[in-house]
Amino acid sequence: MISMEVVEINNVKSLEPFKDCVVRFIHSENVSLAFWTIKKNGVLPDHSHVNEQVTTVTKGELELTIDGKSEVLTPGKVVIIPSNVRHLAKALTDCELTDVFYPIREDYKNK
Amino acid sequence: MISMEVVEINNVKSLEPFKDCVVRFIHSENVSLAFWTIKKNGVLPDHSHVNEQVTTVTKGELELTIDGKSEVLTPGKVVIIPSNVRHLAKALTDCELTDVFYPIREDYKNK
Repeated sequence: MISMEVVEINNVKSLEPFKDCVVRFIHSENVSLAFWTIKKNGVLPDHSHVNEQVTTVTKGELELTIDGKSEVLTPGKVVIIPSNVRHLAKALTDCELTDVFYPIREDYKNK
Repeated sequence: MISMEVVEINNVKSLEPFKDCVVRFIHSENVSLAFWTIKKNGVLPDHSHVNEQVTTVTKGELELTIDGKSEVLTPGKVVIIPSNVRHLAKALTDCELTDVFYPIREDYKNK
């Protein structure tokens, strides 16, 4: 029988791909979830990827910039970033956020 | 230019498909996110769907049962439920959770 797979986020190996930006990835068959903890002033530099992205901020304030337009994301706000759209983010406070990616982030799968 | 789409979860129409189980859906091109608020003892009855599901509990305690095996999900735990696997959930306390579905939940898209 196929059963559920329960993952404790804190038991997942953490990465710090950018200074003060710690992430734990969970990959299912089709999607990747990235749980980020970012210190105030931490920056996810301008980048893009083929993966569609949906981001939910769960703590703090994150400034997201696309095409020179910025939005401050706070808990209760969700942003949808289409495939291949360049974006950058800066933590205005210590913050936590969850990214959902489709398809899965192969570039992070074996890190 | 394609820009980001920011959605305030509380501005999304809420549904109560089961007693004491309130949900707000956000659909991107490829995934659906469901933000649930469930009162203590609220039950999501045994069901299955073709959509793969990844659930994160953000507040409270949720008992999830698959194949007669139960797990209590609390904040920090993530569960992956494969396509077409029957599952049911009961809120042991007031709780909040986020489901990610792939592909999108067409059955909820126009509700």
